Amino acid sequence: MYTDLPEADLRRYVSEQVDPADFDAFWAETLTDAATHDLNVTVIPVDTGLATLDVFDVTFAGFAGQPIKAWLRVPAGATEPLPTIVQFHGYGRGRGQSYENLLWASAGFAHFEMDLRGQGWGGSTSDTPDEAGSGPQAPGFLTRGVDSKETYYFRRLYTDAVRAVEAARSLDVVDAARVGVMGVSQGGGLALAAAGLVPDLAAVVARVPFLCDFPRASVITDAHPYRELGIYLSTNRLNTARAHDTLSYFDGVNFAKRARAPMTMTAALMDPICPPSTVFAAYNNYAGPKQITVWPYNGHEGGAWEDDALTLTAFREHLRQG
Amino acid sequence: MYTDLPEADLRRYVSEQVDPADFDAFWAETLTDAATHDLNVTVIPVDTGLATLDVFDVTFAGFAGQPIKAWLRVPAGATEPLPTIVQFHGYGRGRGQSYENLLWASAGFAHFEMDLRGQGWGGSTSDTPDEAGSGPQAPGFLTRGVDSKETYYFRRLYTDAVRAVEAARSLDVVDAARVGVMGVSQGGGLALAAAGLVPDLAAVVARVPFLCDFPRASVITDAHPYRELGIYLSTNRLNTARAHDTLSYFDGVNFAKRARAPMTMTAALMDPICPPSTVFAAYNNYAGPKQITVWPYNGHEGGAWEDDALTLTAFREHLRQG
Amino acid sequence: MYTDLPEADLRRYVSEQVDPADFDAFWAETLTDAATHDLNVTVIPVDTGLATLDVFDVTFAGFAGQPIKAWLRVPAGATEPLPTIVQFHGYGRGRGQSYENLLWASAGFAHFEMDLRGQGWGGSTSDTPDEAGSGPQAPGFLTRGVDSKETYYFRRLYTDAVRAVEAARSLDVVDAARVGVMGVSQGGGLALAAAGLVPDLAAVVARVPFLCDFPRASVITDAHPYRELGIYLSTNRLNTARAHDTLSYFDGVNFAKRARAPMTMTAALMDPICPPSTVFAAYNNYAGPKQITVWPYNGHEGGAWEDDALTLTAFREHLRQG
Amino acid sequence: MYTDLPEADLRRYVSEQVDPADFDAFWAETLTDAATHDLNVTVIPVDTGLATLDVFDVTFAGFAGQPIKAWLRVPAGATEPLPTIVQFHGYGRGRGQSYENLLWASAGFAHFEMDLRGQGWGGSTSDTPDEAGSGPQAPGFLTRGVDSKETYYFRRLYTDAVRAVEAARSLDVVDAARVGVMGVSQGGGLALAAAGLVPDLAAVVARVPFLCDFPRASVITDAHPYRELGIYLSTNRLNTARAHDTLSYFDGVNFAKRARAPMTMTAALMDPICPPSTVFAAYNNYAGPKQITVWPYNGHEGGAWEDDALTLTAFREHLRQG
Amino acid sequence: MYTDLPEADLRRYVSEQVDPADFDAFWAETLTDAATHDLNVTVIPVDTGLATLDVFDVTFAGFAGQPIKAWLRVPAGATEPLPTIVQFHGYGRGRGQSYENLLWASAGFAHFEMDLRGQGWGGSTSDTPDEAGSGPQAPGFLTRGVDSKETYYFRRLYTDAVRAVEAARSLDVVDAARVGVMGVSQGGGLALAAAGLVPDLAAVVARVPFLCDFPRASVITDAHPYRELGIYLSTNRLNTARAHDTLSYFDGVNFAKRARAPMTMTAALMDPICPPSTVFAAYNNYAGPKQITVWPYNGHEGGAWEDDALTLTAFREHLRQG
Amino acid sequence: MYTDLPEADLRRYVSEQVDPADFDAFWAETLTDAATHDLNVTVIPVDTGLATLDVFDVTFAGFAGQPIKAWLRVPAGATEPLPTIVQFHGYGRGRGQSYENLLWASAGFAHFEMDLRGQGWGGSTSDTPDEAGSGPQAPGFLTRGVDSKETYYFRRLYTDAVRAVEAARSLDVVDAARVGVMGVSQGGGLALAAAGLVPDLAAVVARVPFLCDFPRASVITDAHPYRELGIYLSTNRLNTARAHDTLSYFDGVNFAKRARAPMTMTAALMDPICPPSTVFAAYNNYAGPKQITVWPYNGHEGGAWEDDALTLTAFREHLRQG
Repeated sequence: MYTDLPEADLRRYVSEQVDPADFDAFWAETLTDAATHDLNVTVIPVDTGLATLDVFDVTFAGFAGQPIKAWLRVPAGATEPLPTIVQFHGYGRGRGQSYENLLWASAGFAHFEMDLRGQGWGGSTSDTPDEAGSGPQAPGFLTRGVDSKETYYFRRLYTDAVRAVEAARSLDVVDAARVGVMGVSQGGGLALAAAGLVPDLAAVVARVPFLCDFPRASVITDAHPYRELGIYLSTNRLNTARAHDTLSYFDGVNFAKRARAPMTMTAALMDPICPPSTVFAAYNNYAGPKQITVWPYNGHEGGAWEDDALTLTAFREHLRQG
Repeated sequence: MYTDLPEADLRRYVSEQVDPADFDAFWAETLTDAATHDLNVTVIPVDTGLATLDVFDVTFAGFAGQPIKAWLRVPAGATEPLPTIVQFHGYGRGRGQSYENLLWASAGFAHFEMDLRGQGWGGSTSDTPDEAGSGPQAPGFLTRGVDSKETYYFRRLYTDAVRAVEAARSLDVVDAARVGVMGVSQGGGLALAAAGLVPDLAAVVARVPFLCDFPRASVITDAHPYRELGIYLSTNRLNTARAHDTLSYFDGVNFAKRARAPMTMTAALMDPICPPSTVFAAYNNYAGPKQITVWPYNGHEGGAWEDDALTLTAFREHLRQG
Repeated sequence: MYTDLPEADLRRYVSEQVDPADFDAFWAETLTDAATHDLNVTVIPVDTGLATLDVFDVTFAGFAGQPIKAWLRVPAGATEPLPTIVQFHGYGRGRGQSYENLLWASAGFAHFEMDLRGQGWGGSTSDTPDEAGSGPQAPGFLTRGVDSKETYYFRRLYTDAVRAVEAARSLDVVDAARVGVMGVSQGGGLALAAAGLVPDLAAVVARVPFLCDFPRASVITDAHPYRELGIYLSTNRLNTARAHDTLSYFDGVNFAKRARAPMTMTAALMDPICPPSTVFAAYNNYAGPKQITVWPYNGHEGGAWEDDALTLTAFREHLRQG
Repeated sequence: MYTDLPEADLRRYVSEQVDPADFDAFWAETLTDAATHDLNVTVIPVDTGLATLDVFDVTFAGFAGQPIKAWLRVPAGATEPLPTIVQFHGYGRGRGQSYENLLWASAGFAHFEMDLRGQGWGGSTSDTPDEAGSGPQAPGFLTRGVDSKETYYFRRLYTDAVRAVEAARSLDVVDAARVGVMGVSQGGGLALAAAGLVPDLAAVVARVPFLCDFPRASVITDAHPYRELGIYLSTNRLNTARAHDTLSYFDGVNFAKRARAPMTMTAALMDPICPPSTVFAAYNNYAGPKQITVWPYNGHEGGAWEDDALTLTAFREHLRQG
Repeated sequence: MYTDLPEADLRRYVSEQVDPADFDAFWAETLTDAATHDLNVTVIPVDTGLATLDVFDVTFAGFAGQPIKAWLRVPAGATEPLPTIVQFHGYGRGRGQSYENLLWASAGFAHFEMDLRGQGWGGSTSDTPDEAGSGPQAPGFLTRGVDSKETYYFRRLYTDAVRAVEAARSLDVVDAARVGVMGVSQGGGLALAAAGLVPDLAAVVARVPFLCDFPRASVITDAHPYRELGIYLSTNRLNTARAHDTLSYFDGVNFAKRARAPMTMTAALMDPICPPSTVFAAYNNYAGPKQITVWPYNGHEGGAWEDDALTLTAFREHLRQG
Repeated sequence: MYTDLPEADLRRYVSEQVDPADFDAFWAETLTDAATHDLNVTVIPVDTGLATLDVFDVTFAGFAGQPIKAWLRVPAGATEPLPTIVQFHGYGRGRGQSYENLLWASAGFAHFEMDLRGQGWGGSTSDTPDEAGSGPQAPGFLTRGVDSKETYYFRRLYTDAVRAVEAARSLDVVDAARVGVMGVSQGGGLALAAAGLVPDLAAVVARVPFLCDFPRASVITDAHPYRELGIYLSTNRLNTARAHDTLSYFDGVNFAKRARAPMTMTAALMDPICPPSTVFAAYNNYAGPKQITVWPYNGHEGGAWEDDALTLTAFREHLRQG
């Protein structure tokens, strides 16, 4: 059943999320701090046994210079600068195995798949730790360090994402002018953050994105991971305003206002995990060229393989592939 | 939590499934009937936009000569006879999209992915109808036509599977001497059926296989799809013996007794869908060379990507690839 | 809790279901095709051991001339033309046993209880197969053949229902001028279809009817069987428009517009299976004399025995019994 | 799935329920007390509009002389002494409507359907209050007054059941020598109690009976209503021994030891509500002629209509009907 | 997720509950009847082993003069008239143990904790029976005797609550002019009832109160115990109007209109058990000084320890403690 | 229903957990490292408004010298060395509010209530952060740092617990010779760890303890938090042996073997969270004087207030309280 507003209302929906006065200053300072660490990119070939693709184990310096893993996949033997897709993963996942996720490179792109610090318990593995402590939090990552914007987990993860784009661009096989970002769910939220923080991306694909419109997301669904906020605040109820203040610096709605790259989004009307109003909250605020596909009978899987086709179409167009 | 016996007991477990006296006669007649129809294989290139793989839309004549779809994927430009993997899918799925499921061809195999008649509602799409009526049945396919072995849905599907091997072998790009079959869940059950019905397969991989040990499977889990049997029999309780008679002709336990190809299997101790005793029921009866990997903390996903790695290893060895 | 709109809004609710231009042509052709087959009614006495009722095992030719079973029950020894109730059953059921469902004949009516092709897994048994194949479908009957109006399961079942009325009328013990139809849930949907397709029924009783207002029904509940549509369309998402086109030819809303017999309906405000707005969608469009009883604290059981009393009252009045 | 032991073990299962030394004295005193009140049977014809049956509204004095309602149904016009079925209902039910439950009288029996004091919230209505207070109890009836055998709800209900047999026998249309008792679930438990307390019943049918083997029933299922015991004892944990002492006076296991009438029982291997070991606990102790039918794929519905057929067969044989 | 209206709408919400013309007469008569029984207060010291508090086992005559238990706790050695909190418990609970619930007396109040007749199955024990029979009812207490206002369970319980205040005031250690009432959930409903029936209370604290706005409560949640009404009415559907007539005499909305003491309330926006609109239904009608705290991320636990702090603050202010 | 073995088997149950050769060395080194940091105890009075108790906000240096919070509660004005209870909390909790949890000090003990680093999302709040990063982990704390015994979260928490005892003993109001530890669930696991690591405790109370017998606990329940292990290992399946190696250094079974203080334990036969076999795994290995109370009808609440009474009795006896 529909988990949220009907489509006509979604297209008119306006989020109540606030845009903090020092939002840009906070992120400028955060990225400047990160930039004090050299990117320190290493690229090591992996013996996958695959005949048609080359895969490389990449490491780069993310937030606080901490080493972040990634996979780089390219058509076998490719050396020329390729149009490139930087991919971020969904909640609970990691970069997984070298021999997984072969579509993007098989389609002729360089594919840079960033690992997720500390995640990797659900659906794919991670090889990257999250080096930071936390005050009291609910199980999961959505309230890790939520007491302040400085300590919040997603400050580290969003910074990793920006650095991943930079690391990709530093590679010979990547055409730095033709780099797009994409992701599903949390990956879509990271793509929006990158779109708001990296000024010159060529394309953005955010499918059923997570991490958007926290004020509404935290009260209209009981599904995880948004539910983590409710769990935390049900006990730490006196911290409610403080937590929402932190979250406003990490909301896809606010990154959308600052983004300019052509963007492709999808939403699903039966999605309880990222309810479509929270997706449209970002879409309706997105400042660049944009299109959205709405799937009426889907849950959080969204368009799945149809979304893969939409993604390929978008990247072929905006990265001027083939 | 464990959904079944501990591993030590699994290794000793003996199914109570009966081996009908006319089992071989029934299948010989069924396949002879099918063979009266020409295989009628057509192979049409698909424009997928993939750079590293060629994909073909295949049609062949399955049970009763009905047209069955498949995808053929090979490394781009391959024409020589390749070691070949014939894949069968899980319950509810179909062959899906031409640009999905790229691992096997990327690893250098010819990959023949058979569609599932009438299925395709859950996880991937099917392009093949099931042309047959049915007496009263529970929702789903497990009791479709279960009133007799002649009308049972899986008679048609198992026959399609045997014909898929034949269709693959008829192709120039396939090395007929180096064909293996594989599948997960229902696909594993189909792989076992093929292993019992096709005498000269080079390798079999059956991961967390479904369709094994119906007498036990139907009473030790409430998970679908085995639960379909209980739903049907709870109303059609006077048909219980008749249904079990039908099922005995389709039980992986009985195919395992007749198989000779080297076989790789996996089982998961927390699997409620294909409880591990039903998997070991087939494994313990398997008549050819065999190995099994047991995942103690997994459900029906089994080893997932680790099982993909095991599968590649098995096929590289037994199909004498590279 | 309420599963839908409050009653005041229900009474104003207007369905968005479309009325296809060729709706009447489609059904005229369908029934003309069916009429090419002789009704071929056979009536065989059953030894039930009941002292007060005579029961007969009836067979007649339904869609495509396929044999459909029914029970006929009358007060013991009755031979004169009686006011008659043709009953259709709920989803998953069949005609059941000869000695079940004794109210209607005990009340002095001839009771003609039609079997349901291929159903009979839940609550009562069926003795009638569904002789037709199907393209990919979700488990159950709601998407069987939904790819086109010609192949849709309910084309066959609705035709059976019209033929059941004709078969009943052909019997000596039935007064053809005093025939009413009734049913609960799917049976109510079938009663509405019969009301729209048979011009001269004396009365219609449709209790918490199913098969009404598919556009809304498919998005406001997660309960089965409407949920089958969502399951099918979540994978076959590109078939959404086509499926809804098919459904528009089978929607009780469209049959209601064409019906003229006095109609009694019930709806339940806590019904998740046939949400009351979908019931009112049909009621508000019903073109003949009509009344509806709303049960505020009931789920899909509706008024149950109170609805039986309402049904008896309606048939006594409109069939001019006693 | 199976909710309990496999059938072979069930047939050997021995309950640990104790047989209190003063069990017979307690019940003799209870029934003697009840007998101080005149039965005070009133029989009033009901205008049901049924053509084939006569229905009467019966009242008799039950426990403590409190008025208990019942329906009497007989074939229309019957006046001669008929073989008679006294029926007790399942938990939460009552005698319901006069025009429900027509099978038994339609089959030629006099049918005496006792109401259940204070119940009637689930599935059918009751017209009989329970005139007694209670100490702390869990919601429901299973712990009402469980603090002592004198105040326990089922002391009143079992006494009503014995008095119902006496009331039935006092009627002209009832052949007192040909009276059987029957019931499903709680009704089966009441039938067993009547079988243990009324020495000269002609037949007993107890289908998937409730109220048997409390020591085991209270620890092997979470299904209601046995779960009520667990709810009560989880808070009133210091009352555990006292509650079990009370229950031992009301356990079907102990009544079974004292019964002599021919008995027909059914059990279902997937029944979570009355797990089959608790049913076999009574069956294995039953002291009279007995038979049991085991349904392997059914839950608490047991054999349903097949059990009705078994019931008719048993009563036809033992009540020497027709 | 929110279980009800957003806060702005809650503050405007007006219940549809009716105010029966003879509401005051009914309660005047009820309390007058109760007053014919002497309060009969007994106070017996309990040896708890606590060093800092004295605890007494209190008995007083409640409805119909039936003995009702309570605990009295005071700081060790206290004898002077203290500001006093009379506490009522939540559904399913009782007064529990003498050594539980130490906050209020530790904070310097006399704490009078009333037992709940017949309850005590969930969370704490009761030592008080409910001496009354009941017509058919759903499991639980919400429909016990609901057929008429005279026999309804809560007539007895509300009367007990009024008598508890009187019993407390009769004690030397209680300053009769400084008595407040408080409770959570059902306890909050009892506090509102006391506030409407006892004219001179010094303060009222009703946290997430139950027993308010039955017309809405019974249709907007499936959570127990309001769900008991739906269960009862789903079978006893013809009693719907009668039950609601009874309930109107026991609705916190109607007591709120008659209350004058300063009142502190809390509501939780994610509460499915006492949805916030039902709480605001009482709050918006409360006729005395009032304040409400709304917890946006809490369920039925409400503010828990924060609500304890709010309660202490309110009583310290209104009972002019230290 | 029972969630585990019957009591007789529990008393014979032997865990398969291994006792690592360097267990003692690991803990000796861990505690030696901790001891390099001064305890640094600060004690600040809190204005709670409580009349009968004094409460102090305590800070001490835990693992790695990180500041850990605690509450100290004593009878108002107490200054003499008191028998003392050091309490550890259940999973998800923290030390909560100063005015909560008053029983132990009201009973005359000094009550030292340790905070839980990083927890505090469920049931009570924490004021103590967990200052450490983690590799990939499942949501929650049970797999935080589980990759090695050095980085495992519970290394830090167990060390905090030992330091809490030392901090308590450093206070004037505490009689260092009469210190006991207690806890429920995770708190019980911490109490067992303290019992194994602190040689001279006077008493130990471990109620339904968590963190015992990981090999079995991780496979016989789906309830959280043990389920966190299964979630982590279902993705990180190749880390299974490594994780279990880590866990063996933190298993209550191994601490029990090393403990000598008199110990009181409780277990509940319907506990799915800490199944009773895991509790008996520790109990059966406990090397000191011991007693256990088994609650047959309770879940993880165990004996609740009865367990409080048992706890008071144990401490009164073993701490030689007045």
